[in-house]
Amino acid sequence: MHYQQVLIAGEWRDPHHPAGHFDTVNPARKQKLPEVYPVSGEHDVNAAIAAGKEAAVELRRVPRERFAQFLEAFADKIKAHTDELVTIASLETALPKEPRLKTGELPRTTNQLRTAAQAARERSWCHATIETSVNIRSMMGPLDGPVSVFGPNNFPFAFNSVAGGDFAAAIAAGNPVIAKANTGHPGTTLVLARLAFEAVTETGLPPATVQMIYRTPPELGRTLVSHEHIGASAFTGSKSAGLKLKAAADKAGKPIYLEMSSVNPVFVLPGALEERSDEIAAELFGSCALGAGQFCTNPGLMILQKGDLTERFIATLAQTFAGHEPGVLLSAQGPDGILNALEVLKAAGAEVIAGGDQVEDDAYRFANTLLRIDGRTFIKRPHELQTEAFGTASLIVVADDIQQMKEVASVLEGNLTGCIYSNTQGQDDRRYEILEPELRPRVGRLLNDKVPTGVAVVASMNHGGPYPATGHPGFTAVGLPASMLRFAALYCYDNVRPHRLPVELQDKNPTGSMWRLIDGQWTQRDI
Amino acid sequence: MHYQQVLIAGEWRDPHHPAGHFDTVNPARKQKLPEVYPVSGEHDVNAAIAAGKEAAVELRRVPRERFAQFLEAFADKIKAHTDELVTIASLETALPKEPRLKTGELPRTTNQLRTAAQAARERSWCHATIETSVNIRSMMGPLDGPVSVFGPNNFPFAFNSVAGGDFAAAIAAGNPVIAKANTGHPGTTLVLARLAFEAVTETGLPPATVQMIYRTPPELGRTLVSHEHIGASAFTGSKSAGLKLKAAADKAGKPIYLEMSSVNPVFVLPGALEERSDEIAAELFGSCALGAGQFCTNPGLMILQKGDLTERFIATLAQTFAGHEPGVLLSAQGPDGILNALEVLKAAGAEVIAGGDQVEDDAYRFANTLLRIDGRTFIKRPHELQTEAFGTASLIVVADDIQQMKEVASVLEGNLTGCIYSNTQGQDDRRYEILEPELRPRVGRLLNDKVPTGVAVVASMNHGGPYPATGHPGFTAVGLPASMLRFAALYCYDNVRPHRLPVELQDKNPTGSMWRLIDGQWTQRDI
Repeated sequence: MHYQQVLIAGEWRDPHHPAGHFDTVNPARKQKLPEVYPVSGEHDVNAAIAAGKEAAVELRRVPRERFAQFLEAFADKIKAHTDELVTIASLETALPKEPRLKTGELPRTTNQLRTAAQAARERSWCHATIETSVNIRSMMGPLDGPVSVFGPNNFPFAFNSVAGGDFAAAIAAGNPVIAKANTGHPGTTLVLARLAFEAVTETGLPPATVQMIYRTPPELGRTLVSHEHIGASAFTGSKSAGLKLKAAADKAGKPIYLEMSSVNPVFVLPGALEERSDEIAAELFGSCALGAGQFCTNPGLMILQKGDLTERFIATLAQTFAGHEPGVLLSAQGPDGILNALEVLKAAGAEVIAGGDQVEDDAYRFANTLLRIDGRTFIKRPHELQTEAFGTASLIVVADDIQQMKEVASVLEGNLTGCIYSNTQGQDDRRYEILEPELRPRVGRLLNDKVPTGVAVVASMNHGGPYPATGHPGFTAVGLPASMLRFAALYCYDNVRPHRLPVELQDKNPTGSMWRLIDGQWTQRDI
Repeated sequence: MHYQQVLIAGEWRDPHHPAGHFDTVNPARKQKLPEVYPVSGEHDVNAAIAAGKEAAVELRRVPRERFAQFLEAFADKIKAHTDELVTIASLETALPKEPRLKTGELPRTTNQLRTAAQAARERSWCHATIETSVNIRSMMGPLDGPVSVFGPNNFPFAFNSVAGGDFAAAIAAGNPVIAKANTGHPGTTLVLARLAFEAVTETGLPPATVQMIYRTPPELGRTLVSHEHIGASAFTGSKSAGLKLKAAADKAGKPIYLEMSSVNPVFVLPGALEERSDEIAAELFGSCALGAGQFCTNPGLMILQKGDLTERFIATLAQTFAGHEPGVLLSAQGPDGILNALEVLKAAGAEVIAGGDQVEDDAYRFANTLLRIDGRTFIKRPHELQTEAFGTASLIVVADDIQQMKEVASVLEGNLTGCIYSNTQGQDDRRYEILEPELRPRVGRLLNDKVPTGVAVVASMNHGGPYPATGHPGFTAVGLPASMLRFAALYCYDNVRPHRLPVELQDKNPTGSMWRLIDGQWTQRDI
């Protein structure tokens, strides 16, 4: 059988003793695509780890500028191959070429790479800290081994394991990457890996700076996060897969950054409904339906206070959900996953008020689904009722009053986002004050009057949150340079002779503009 | 039986259904001390967690200034009770009142508390980041529950769970603390908790901001790091105890920061021996014997290149070790622990060249012990030969050449520190270049020509390192404000109305001097 090649130790290789193979399906037609991809076996995984470790050692001597050049060259190549990339990504994921892939996700991806290049060049991200009185200097620096990146199915470019946010952050922080393609879009990942490797070669980085395999048996996935020569790993995907990797990494004492699941609660306060009920319903439906609901920040839970306005709002929303054709899901697992989640929600008492079924179609679709439950039941069975249905499916919680809304907030698991819609004239301010203290610490990003989808790639973004949304509440997966801190270790130099210090910690500011914390003051000056 | 009281939910209480009791021994005389302390049972542990959780919610509304006032008031009280504290700590630990406890550790402890107060007041630690173009603002803020602190036996003040570095950092970051006393100095911890609670009351913090218990059965220790209402935990102590807590915390998705074990390798290059062999031997012995060798940064591993000078150096060091009276260890477990570690080292091939035995004495002592092994054997059995003997006991590795020294470095586990002594005229520079890239990523703090003991409490310190020295290579336990980041979560505010923002993220700089990252520039200005 002819397998697609893997990228290991600086060469495109036929898989060595593969553990199996797989193919992919065009979800818009339920048709198999012709390529066959190998499931990598022990030999290839160990070879990638060994080469990655060597690359990590070599990269410590490479000037920061070179990382920036690589990231920019890679971004240029992606841009130059827009049509090829958009075509294959659309084929593998059914995501529309326009407006989503071509003018949305692809430019976002190249922007991320360029922002990462800028951060690598600019260097303030490393928090260089110098105490001149005792000559102790410290900074964040690259890890002692490659970073394994496991990308999700829902962003073939922007979160791709070989081009997305985790990749960009890991490289910009000075680490090699072993990319584990998402098995939903291996062809897209192959093209991206080819372009990345060309950029590696052209900018003279160690060949194993970027490696890529498509899939492994579960035990080798665990090896990729726990091997003694792995620096850290990043995973975006389902909670069940993420927790297995987390257990393996934790046991080995290896950092792992997970972005797993989130129902993204949206609280709509009564005064907001009075003011702009239809507008909010339209906004929320738009957010719920974006990418066929397969966004990590998709609003899967809405909490309202009972009353006539709320009933009207729910009726409007249910009508909107029912009245729109459902988007195409990423794979056959899409409808199955939603169905399973709905079973859990229904068993816990949720009532379906729109949708609820698979759609018989040439493509994988699931009816836009809305459910409802009362606040009291939600508080009694909070875990089942926070089951994520990865699609356009949301649960509305109707609470008795603001105190019960607060109680609902108090039993929320960790989430990426939480929104509060309130009256613009201040009528809800007291309610906001009751609710916010419970909601705030349970979400990474708190929004006012705004849907959570659309994660701006800016320095102040937090695409993170408390467990189980992620594995650690102090880190973000989006937002440079903060996201780079996941792939760095704190290195202190005590009485180290001047010429042996990394340039970032020498007396002279290496760029003239890098921010350093010298004797308690952030400054761009030399010492 | 009359038990000492525990501090739970704002009151000194008799233990409720204790799970047992324990007493302590004056290690300088092997005599029981009169007080009896309870082993806290489920009721008290759960009560502490519940009260801590409530305090965490209340503390989110408390102005930062109040935390600073508390820390300063507590420092003042410690200073005012110097004699009482030094007396009981010396009785419980056998650490000398002078120069160690009174003029060394106690002022260090109050300085840490004052530095933490300054950081809480100054606020730059929270990395406020604002992107004005999209109105997204983020900062590090307190966790969603109390921080459990488990202090070690070897620093009754500076790392005490109710007064030390972890305590100060957790409080300064805005969290309540549940302190688990080290069972080696419960009386000292009781006095400190009494003073802390007085300061809590006087500064008007929620009563459960500081709680203290002495000991728990192992399963309740695990509860203290994994309960859903715990924010995070910090542990300093043995690897075996630390790893058990880590497993429980990891499983629950709760951050835990561990400082476990470290042999702190010291490489002495040939040119340094040529230049100042006796000086280095004296320095190293001083460092090894400090605190009877019971320092986390104690040099437990020295690596030299074979040759006449090295033999002379080893002979000098062995003579020095043998010629000095061993210090008093912290407890009966001290000599036993060293003996067990030596068994492992000897079984792996290490040869005892000084000491090696318990000392029959009125106090707990163990002979200053030096062992040696060749480089080849070390590389073959690196794990056994990195067994930490917590006392004045070091293993000398004699390597064939610099390449073998590099190989020794390459099999080192994560350590808090690593030192390289080299010739001051540059004769060792090539060797340094070979060795440093292997050593650097395996240690938190790299030193030149300096012993690792004596951890300066400055912003640029890293008292951390890769696993298993700690549980995460990106954090430090000493060095404010960086150590506070362990006890914080990243909170983002997206389109949140101005009056609902924390003061740190409002347009006006809340102190006029806090550093914030606004649109990519660190600045002290308003928006």
